[in-house]
Amino acid sequence: MSAYTNFETVKGEFITDNVLHVQLNRPKKLNAFNPTQVKEVREIFQVIREDRNIRAVVVSGSGRMFTAGLDLSENGLVIMDSGMDLARAAFHRRRHIEDFQAAFTAIEQCDKPVIAAVHNGCFGAGVDMITACDIRYATKDSFFCVKEVDVGLAADVGTLQRLPKVIGNNSLVRELCFTGRNMYAEEALQCGLINKVLGSQEEVVGEYNSEAIKTAKLIASKSPVAVVGTKNLLNYSRDHSVAEGLEYTVTWNAAMLSTEDIPRSVEAFVTKKPAVYSKL
Amino acid sequence: MSAYTNFETVKGEFITDNVLHVQLNRPKKLNAFNPTQVKEVREIFQVIREDRNIRAVVVSGSGRMFTAGLDLSENGLVIMDSGMDLARAAFHRRRHIEDFQAAFTAIEQCDKPVIAAVHNGCFGAGVDMITACDIRYATKDSFFCVKEVDVGLAADVGTLQRLPKVIGNNSLVRELCFTGRNMYAEEALQCGLINKVLGSQEEVVGEYNSEAIKTAKLIASKSPVAVVGTKNLLNYSRDHSVAEGLEYTVTWNAAMLSTEDIPRSVEAFVTKKPAVYSKL
Amino acid sequence: MSAYTNFETVKGEFITDNVLHVQLNRPKKLNAFNPTQVKEVREIFQVIREDRNIRAVVVSGSGRMFTAGLDLSENGLVIMDSGMDLARAAFHRRRHIEDFQAAFTAIEQCDKPVIAAVHNGCFGAGVDMITACDIRYATKDSFFCVKEVDVGLAADVGTLQRLPKVIGNNSLVRELCFTGRNMYAEEALQCGLINKVLGSQEEVVGEYNSEAIKTAKLIASKSPVAVVGTKNLLNYSRDHSVAEGLEYTVTWNAAMLSTEDIPRSVEAFVTKKPAVYSKL
Amino acid sequence: MSAYTNFETVKGEFITDNVLHVQLNRPKKLNAFNPTQVKEVREIFQVIREDRNIRAVVVSGSGRMFTAGLDLSENGLVIMDSGMDLARAAFHRRRHIEDFQAAFTAIEQCDKPVIAAVHNGCFGAGVDMITACDIRYATKDSFFCVKEVDVGLAADVGTLQRLPKVIGNNSLVRELCFTGRNMYAEEALQCGLINKVLGSQEEVVGEYNSEAIKTAKLIASKSPVAVVGTKNLLNYSRDHSVAEGLEYTVTWNAAMLSTEDIPRSVEAFVTKKPAVYSKL
Amino acid sequence: MSAYTNFETVKGEFITDNVLHVQLNRPKKLNAFNPTQVKEVREIFQVIREDRNIRAVVVSGSGRMFTAGLDLSENGLVIMDSGMDLARAAFHRRRHIEDFQAAFTAIEQCDKPVIAAVHNGCFGAGVDMITACDIRYATKDSFFCVKEVDVGLAADVGTLQRLPKVIGNNSLVRELCFTGRNMYAEEALQCGLINKVLGSQEEVVGEYNSEAIKTAKLIASKSPVAVVGTKNLLNYSRDHSVAEGLEYTVTWNAAMLSTEDIPRSVEAFVTKKPAVYSKL
Amino acid sequence: MSAYTNFETVKGEFITDNVLHVQLNRPKKLNAFNPTQVKEVREIFQVIREDRNIRAVVVSGSGRMFTAGLDLSENGLVIMDSGMDLARAAFHRRRHIEDFQAAFTAIEQCDKPVIAAVHNGCFGAGVDMITACDIRYATKDSFFCVKEVDVGLAADVGTLQRLPKVIGNNSLVRELCFTGRNMYAEEALQCGLINKVLGSQEEVVGEYNSEAIKTAKLIASKSPVAVVGTKNLLNYSRDHSVAEGLEYTVTWNAAMLSTEDIPRSVEAFVTKKPAVYSKL
Repeated sequence: MSAYTNFETVKGEFITDNVLHVQLNRPKKLNAFNPTQVKEVREIFQVIREDRNIRAVVVSGSGRMFTAGLDLSENGLVIMDSGMDLARAAFHRRRHIEDFQAAFTAIEQCDKPVIAAVHNGCFGAGVDMITACDIRYATKDSFFCVKEVDVGLAADVGTLQRLPKVIGNNSLVRELCFTGRNMYAEEALQCGLINKVLGSQEEVVGEYNSEAIKTAKLIASKSPVAVVGTKNLLNYSRDHSVAEGLEYTVTWNAAMLSTEDIPRSVEAFVTKKPAVYSKL
Repeated sequence: MSAYTNFETVKGEFITDNVLHVQLNRPKKLNAFNPTQVKEVREIFQVIREDRNIRAVVVSGSGRMFTAGLDLSENGLVIMDSGMDLARAAFHRRRHIEDFQAAFTAIEQCDKPVIAAVHNGCFGAGVDMITACDIRYATKDSFFCVKEVDVGLAADVGTLQRLPKVIGNNSLVRELCFTGRNMYAEEALQCGLINKVLGSQEEVVGEYNSEAIKTAKLIASKSPVAVVGTKNLLNYSRDHSVAEGLEYTVTWNAAMLSTEDIPRSVEAFVTKKPAVYSKL
Repeated sequence: MSAYTNFETVKGEFITDNVLHVQLNRPKKLNAFNPTQVKEVREIFQVIREDRNIRAVVVSGSGRMFTAGLDLSENGLVIMDSGMDLARAAFHRRRHIEDFQAAFTAIEQCDKPVIAAVHNGCFGAGVDMITACDIRYATKDSFFCVKEVDVGLAADVGTLQRLPKVIGNNSLVRELCFTGRNMYAEEALQCGLINKVLGSQEEVVGEYNSEAIKTAKLIASKSPVAVVGTKNLLNYSRDHSVAEGLEYTVTWNAAMLSTEDIPRSVEAFVTKKPAVYSKL
Repeated sequence: MSAYTNFETVKGEFITDNVLHVQLNRPKKLNAFNPTQVKEVREIFQVIREDRNIRAVVVSGSGRMFTAGLDLSENGLVIMDSGMDLARAAFHRRRHIEDFQAAFTAIEQCDKPVIAAVHNGCFGAGVDMITACDIRYATKDSFFCVKEVDVGLAADVGTLQRLPKVIGNNSLVRELCFTGRNMYAEEALQCGLINKVLGSQEEVVGEYNSEAIKTAKLIASKSPVAVVGTKNLLNYSRDHSVAEGLEYTVTWNAAMLSTEDIPRSVEAFVTKKPAVYSKL
Repeated sequence: MSAYTNFETVKGEFITDNVLHVQLNRPKKLNAFNPTQVKEVREIFQVIREDRNIRAVVVSGSGRMFTAGLDLSENGLVIMDSGMDLARAAFHRRRHIEDFQAAFTAIEQCDKPVIAAVHNGCFGAGVDMITACDIRYATKDSFFCVKEVDVGLAADVGTLQRLPKVIGNNSLVRELCFTGRNMYAEEALQCGLINKVLGSQEEVVGEYNSEAIKTAKLIASKSPVAVVGTKNLLNYSRDHSVAEGLEYTVTWNAAMLSTEDIPRSVEAFVTKKPAVYSKL
Repeated sequence: MSAYTNFETVKGEFITDNVLHVQLNRPKKLNAFNPTQVKEVREIFQVIREDRNIRAVVVSGSGRMFTAGLDLSENGLVIMDSGMDLARAAFHRRRHIEDFQAAFTAIEQCDKPVIAAVHNGCFGAGVDMITACDIRYATKDSFFCVKEVDVGLAADVGTLQRLPKVIGNNSLVRELCFTGRNMYAEEALQCGLINKVLGSQEEVVGEYNSEAIKTAKLIASKSPVAVVGTKNLLNYSRDHSVAEGLEYTVTWNAAMLSTEDIPRSVEAFVTKKPAVYSKL
């Protein structure tokens, strides 16, 4: 399992055999995203995708807050043009933005449900990150800020795409994105950005009995065929018409119903004993 | 009108000349979906589509609850392979899933607004069904459960496609679908799955003066050209960009504004007398 | 600035150098949309689009209410057929609907954030109009009504496309559109149609210190490159998959990150002095 | 197999155990489409879809020509309005056009490859029909005519959608559709509408050794899992982006590679003996 | 009809009551597109769209060739930045490209079929223009050149979008666009870019009896309801799936079949006398 | 430049400073795709994407033929199920197919034009590969075979998606894919799969003066900003509507017109001297 401890800026730790806790791990920098952290978020979720032991993931931030967003001191937003003309600079900037987007898209595509456990501040790229997760819990002192407008740019690594689809309310999304104001836990709960508000970071993501961990364990106790299929089909259906989502589902489940998990689930229901499912 | 009383597992009854009340009618089985009920739901809504007398529909469950979902005792989720190889089995399973989906898509495509009146439990396929309806009312003892994950499969007859578009909040949708937990009336109201919570089944769908019936009657009193157009355009627009929705609307209303319902409506407004509209 | 005072049915007034207040200006007719008002709404927002001084817009109604919707006395919904056959009449009706749609699409495409400030009634075409705006504030005596069904037609100038994407809840949208009932301020706030309820029209849009004006000024104080990009990307992303939204964003920001607004924003952050941005 | 001989206007006959020959069978009326023929084309292809014996289909016309197109004497293009207003008439005309479209869409969706064998004239609805087939052969005296423009209407049962995707050349498509001119066999071959020109109807579709039959037999000798998958994936990919087509293919073949047809095919290749495949 | 003679760089002339001949009219500049010509192409086709007399249009170039493409001497490809930063320059360049695109999109959206009649050279923007037309004829000395790559830019006013859909062959399109080589009449005919090669400009577009004019007259003799519908549905279907094209067609023809043109067409067929159709 | 010589199954060699020649390099195995070759094709094109020296690529096969397609002896089409249930096997097969697809998608996304130079046989995966290239040349003894159907599966790594968009003719595509027959050079030329037929492999891809190399050099002499933009926009436009393609182009060129390549190109045109462009 050392695969998850070899990173510099993120850290993965198994809570149970099937639940991994990933932490942003630059507490002195308030977990701000420098190029290494961007790269490692992508890498760790690519490893998670292939890890047959993992069935659910919790993501949190170490130290004072979830994340302060982009680390402006280390990111060259404006590529040094060193003689390059502007078209060429723009061409290379494409790569840079694509790489950053890929970090959070890796969360969306890792197959396993990912629960974000937020405490205190969640700025800029942090909002991009948590909207790529599946479920969000937060402390009562948490707050969320689509900060990009205050740095002179339109958010470009996911918030403008995913936030409207997470909370389903364009009025609020636009106000948040145009004004850069803080949204506190209570409002985040009400608008549906977060699923639950809890007292302290300990309650959200403290090991073993916190809410995020409990939910992750609950999900990890279900059929992995059912859970992974559900995530894939929800992702697909979000981006397609109902008719196309239904058609894709037919094709997906034509294979996936050939699983021993169904009789095992039914038996568990009848015998009232927990089902044991094979790795996926 | 006997067209609606010839079914074995569903039952249709006219409340007024223009409002039909459809009931899932296997109370001893908690209205669980066996193959017959799946087939008959599709059939009754195909008949409703062609019935020029009907302008609004209410759907409810008879007996103890709305529906217990899939009837596991009668549905062969895993097709008996009797020598068939796995590709062939998958190919035939496609048909099976398509047929099930078609039952609820028939509700969406029946042209007339359909109001679901839920009491007590609404499990699995029940959630698939009500998300294909237009409006949802429920009793205060109602609860909703995306149960599929507990049977070892990803929901495949509509919930994963329609629920996110009904309630517009992916945080909650994903939590419900991954955990299979119950959502009770109050939360269902707050997240917008249901439009109103009422005291008892009688208040929801008891004949003549209940809320679902009153709303159905109100809708049935409006211009059928306007109502059917609204349902078609909302369905279309849900699945297309704003620009495409607008373009389709232009083409739809280019014909549909040629209706006597407009002058009749205006006259009704002026004279304060209810308008009488021809059948559509 | 006289460009904004030459209209007959709308009126534009600069609140600050960068904030324009547009008013529907047919108070005796309750700001009902006659053909001139439709045309002028389109024209004024086309001018706004090209006006490099404007960074945010507030729209309100003069007199007793925001708008009574379509002016039935002046709009020929049914084109006089003067010998024309029905296909030809339908063909010309297409143009008529397209022109009406274009008025509100001009709001969506004017690049600058538009805040609707609603007081009292907002009927029919008024709902079409405000759903094409970005942010909505309203008085506590405000109410909203998708009135088209009561005139015998399906709404055809934007409500059926945009309202579901603004409030993200199809249950409520369908109930409103099928029944034509009033939705009052409190419910409009709860469902997210409006961002804030305020006491009186003065508080909403009274000059200088009202809420809508304050928000407009706040937005106008931000980098115009960031704000205009945010609006464009939110519009695009609403109508595309997450993957397509991300791809478009890469291309957009490849150019837009080449802006002095970024260093100016960062400097402002460091020095705690407001940034001054060039016109866009 | 009597399922295929109970029709009035179409006739199905097995050439081999796996190849069905379907004929339009109103030779005295030049196989013009009256309402019965429209209905029966849909029905026969729906039966074919479920018939596990069939692996390839040939479609031809009996008598003097393939088809004269729509039977104007029996089709009420303009629905009798019997007091119905125009919106209502338009609403019912929708159903009528949908039913006609469904006849040819049934060919596209019947899973098995369908080869059109055309001789002499192929007018109007005939072009709609053959463009819904997979492969087209024709006699050297054949000709094709998008006749609808000469009857005062835009083609509405498939030609305008499918012809451009079959021949991939919009210049020619538009000329044919605007002018209604005849296109003869040679040009049809060159533009790719037809795959091969043959001397006489006997050579095209005469039983046992004609070209269309030979190709059908060849296809029927291949793995049905491979053939049906190929048709489904080509249909899907025609209507989606490359990326979406690839994604759908992954999901399709995840199941369909679990087939004994693969080892049987490989063995056949090695042993040089024809493979025998089970029914699909 | 003076509407068509008031332009500086284009000229419209009626050949018959229903056929307009539009000429690019800067012969001394080889009809190269300066800003005025771009603007006037858009304007003339917007006027044509509303002109009920016109049923078909022919477009040609005056003087030595069809067009030399973009007039580099008058177009500021690189916007003078006069202190503007690069993001701002890019923002304004958007407008510039959009306006240029709008000129050729106006041809596509003018409802009436447009026949391009090309002689001699057709460079750069000329290819963008003719691919937005419906049908293309050319002289045997004509040649076509996607010249943009040689000026240091990717074609941005339509060729890269429309050329692949006109000729349906990506191999050739990519070779032409990457190499900027000339394609001569013979190859253009073979690949389907042009419908016919003729001896001289006189044969193509010389008044009264030339091929382009004859085809335009033929189209103008057909039902305008049928012709305009065909163009609209072909445009729509090019950009949508077959299923979506069919659905849109249902809605379009639900209205458009209510036309006297159908009985008039049928009567003309029976009586062998030409039908006379009302203006659309 | 050793980056291109470290592979086991593919080999890259610079023909000029800007043109790379990539060879499939398993001549003894007829360049059949084993897992290593699949992986290395993806890798080499990912390196090419980032290599600022490369402006055009030629791909050919070493030895007797271009490629024999999938190496059946080394590819486990049917994953060994070692106790895995069928759903789990299907899930892992998804990864396998995705990886194979990624190899050819890397060609499409490498930004630089890729010319396939085919000699002799091009089977199965070879067709998938060359349809992901931009331009195709072939020897007169070349032939092409969509072989998958003969192995018992539907082609799943690109042919069914890209071939119809390359040759734009569904009649032929379907015949080829259903029958698995060989298509020889002459027919491949005529249908547009290949751009040119040449006498021998030496003429196609022999170094320095062969046709594929000459075309690659020609492309490499053009502005890289123009060429890369053209490839990107053609890829995007293939998969989107014309309107969406135009919108994306506006955003792309808003940045890319800020290039020194434009004045350099114009100057080269005026001075008749070749332009020298900086690396991209």
